[in-house]
Amino acid sequence: MFTKILIANRGEIAIRIIRACKEMGISTVAVYSQADKESLHTALADQAVCVGGSRAEDSYLDAKRIISAALATGAQAIHPGYGFLSENAEFARLCRQYGLTFIGPSAEVISRMGDKEAARKLMRENGVPTTPGTDVLSSPVEALKAAEAIGYPVMIKASAGGGGKGIRLVERPEDIERAFCTASAEAEKAFGDGRVYMEKYLAPSKHIEVQLLADQEGHIVCLGERECSIQKNHQKLIEESPSPGVTPGTREKLIAAAANAAQAAEYTNAGTVEFLMDKSGQFYFMEMNTRLQVEHPVTELVTGIDIVKWQIRIAAGVPLDFTQQDIHLQGAAIECRINAIKASRVKFFHPPGGPWVRFDSFLYQGCDISPYYDSMLGKLIVYSSTREEAIRKMQSALCELIIDGVDNNIEEQIGIVRDRRFRAGDYYTDFIRYFKPKLKDK
Amino acid sequence: MFTKILIANRGEIAIRIIRACKEMGISTVAVYSQADKESLHTALADQAVCVGGSRAEDSYLDAKRIISAALATGAQAIHPGYGFLSENAEFARLCRQYGLTFIGPSAEVISRMGDKEAARKLMRENGVPTTPGTDVLSSPVEALKAAEAIGYPVMIKASAGGGGKGIRLVERPEDIERAFCTASAEAEKAFGDGRVYMEKYLAPSKHIEVQLLADQEGHIVCLGERECSIQKNHQKLIEESPSPGVTPGTREKLIAAAANAAQAAEYTNAGTVEFLMDKSGQFYFMEMNTRLQVEHPVTELVTGIDIVKWQIRIAAGVPLDFTQQDIHLQGAAIECRINAIKASRVKFFHPPGGPWVRFDSFLYQGCDISPYYDSMLGKLIVYSSTREEAIRKMQSALCELIIDGVDNNIEEQIGIVRDRRFRAGDYYTDFIRYFKPKLKDK
Repeated sequence: MFTKILIANRGEIAIRIIRACKEMGISTVAVYSQADKESLHTALADQAVCVGGSRAEDSYLDAKRIISAALATGAQAIHPGYGFLSENAEFARLCRQYGLTFIGPSAEVISRMGDKEAARKLMRENGVPTTPGTDVLSSPVEALKAAEAIGYPVMIKASAGGGGKGIRLVERPEDIERAFCTASAEAEKAFGDGRVYMEKYLAPSKHIEVQLLADQEGHIVCLGERECSIQKNHQKLIEESPSPGVTPGTREKLIAAAANAAQAAEYTNAGTVEFLMDKSGQFYFMEMNTRLQVEHPVTELVTGIDIVKWQIRIAAGVPLDFTQQDIHLQGAAIECRINAIKASRVKFFHPPGGPWVRFDSFLYQGCDISPYYDSMLGKLIVYSSTREEAIRKMQSALCELIIDGVDNNIEEQIGIVRDRRFRAGDYYTDFIRYFKPKLKDK
Repeated sequence: MFTKILIANRGEIAIRIIRACKEMGISTVAVYSQADKESLHTALADQAVCVGGSRAEDSYLDAKRIISAALATGAQAIHPGYGFLSENAEFARLCRQYGLTFIGPSAEVISRMGDKEAARKLMRENGVPTTPGTDVLSSPVEALKAAEAIGYPVMIKASAGGGGKGIRLVERPEDIERAFCTASAEAEKAFGDGRVYMEKYLAPSKHIEVQLLADQEGHIVCLGERECSIQKNHQKLIEESPSPGVTPGTREKLIAAAANAAQAAEYTNAGTVEFLMDKSGQFYFMEMNTRLQVEHPVTELVTGIDIVKWQIRIAAGVPLDFTQQDIHLQGAAIECRINAIKASRVKFFHPPGGPWVRFDSFLYQGCDISPYYDSMLGKLIVYSSTREEAIRKMQSALCELIIDGVDNNIEEQIGIVRDRRFRAGDYYTDFIRYFKPKLKDK
């Protein structure tokens, strides 16, 4: 097992990984930007190294500086978290070159699944259903023709995509050109790769994803599904496991498809296969995320498996000590992402508590929320024996949570978990478009 | 099911119960003393009623005022928590008289098990092993004779005892008279009943207790054992489940003995049967606690069962929906009690977090710790798949916890969880006598 790991990330996920390392008896090295000097992750790690300026490009995205920090501190492995360098094949390659273990799949697998359109092709060839769509589109004119063939509405998506960037929903032919150009420009900016492709937009549909673990001996175990249909601007807001829309029969098929996808990709470590599912329960492969996901805790709570500890064990060559037959989703878990609306200083902070309530966050009273990075302040996760009780627990936990001084979305989340359609499980990826909060009664 | 419950308690346990009610969709009524006007439990409940002065006798121990508050607010049931009126048979009787459901066993059962010496007799008659000991002792002279027959060391214990009060360890004949008198005086003060009896003191021994749930249809399910041998002045400091000293064979016997005890007592609701266990695994009944216990969370984490929700369901007549065969202790849970050494104001508060870390507490930044009530500030509970990882998790969670402004025992707890004998599970009720903290290395 590793004795020292560098965590190439910040915020709540860096802290999540540091805590897992401590529990495993592994020393930790944090990296931080100038803006994050006072950030909680630097205080909790055994060592902390400044890797550059406040802009992510100058620090958390600077592969060479991070590798230098690992070598200088004697770390044997790097955990990339999510975002930043987590799906950067070149970074995984550099790690290997310098004798460091990248905690994630191989550079080859990251490349293979990172090209979203090539990944869809691989899946089709291996019998995993995909939505009707195109290869890479060369021009708005080609996009217009493709949309006519597929039928509106369609999605234009970045080939190198991820994190909701470079995505446009198009409902009418007159919007195609603009959508093509803006998606491509956004993708160029975010990923240095402006290629886009098109998919049929299924509505109403649910975003269903399967979490899996694959060890270096070829064992693949799927940890059930998560539903992440509550989204705003292509960013997930609420995730839950199990999905209220997935029957046991569909779950079996989803798991088989996800395991098939992982095998086709020659996948190792933790990964997620994302599907769209229509009202009839038919589902289609969207993409595979070759990293830890923000919403991994809901899966941890319904399976009892610590995904981050298993990422580390798998990277160290430890085989899984359970099989698919051992996995039974128990109870219901829900996560609400708590986001800042404007960066500023936390004046008063009080997290909720009690049994099976978890608030993964980097907040402390008096800390500054930096404008340089993403707006997520924390993730509130609850677990109960039934979905109905988990929803009530989430509602009271949201009411207990106090983050004064930073405009945030707690009230919006309270509105959503009180919503009749959310409570009934009768919701789809277009939920937010039709959502009207009722905040009168507590 | 009840629609409104009054919680006749304060601090972390009142909050624990309020949260359970919210999750079940039940309205809550808090009661508070003048000293607790700004206490967190009053803010979290749907309603809060002041029941008197700061001294417990004038508020939390005043049965009539609490019953009046329940009647005035339309509560149908009262949850007594632990301490205060939780093991007061007269209070349970009063509740029944006023048409209120007491969430706990019947007044008769509380009386039966509340007389510690009579309870030991009942257990002996029903084949549950008890330590060698006496009936109620009438004088120091009788105590001296009994101690000679039993053999030193012996314990003098209050018949009406509980919470570590009215207990004296006696190792030499010349100390008998003083111990008899001080234990009796302390018992008179604490319980209004100065009767004492004598038990053989088993050393080294482990404090092992079995948590059970018994519904109104006569089903009894034991939720495994807790070990609570780390004690200071007869107060538990650290509890864990499962016990590192209990083998699967002994566990089966403990469970059979506890179920037998509950049946003999005609027990309903949540209860705990306490045993002393010697190095050979022989165990002896000490007493039965007819209430929720401080350390119930460790059992919740290894069984997945919410004990407080089941207390409420059982009181409402709901039968258990699981049997003894469904109970399998999974992983390892540890609780450290965080106590104040001196009452004052919390200047900065930061609880630990992360997966399977729970801090049950009533603290918030700026709150006052009252000198009127017990010194517990909160309970830090962690869970992991192995005891070794749970201990490391506890260590880092204790290091994350910040309670500035109030002298507390966090450092002492860090010392204990780092101790070689604690880590090896090789510890007994005399642990603290021999414990020397080493705080040099982190």
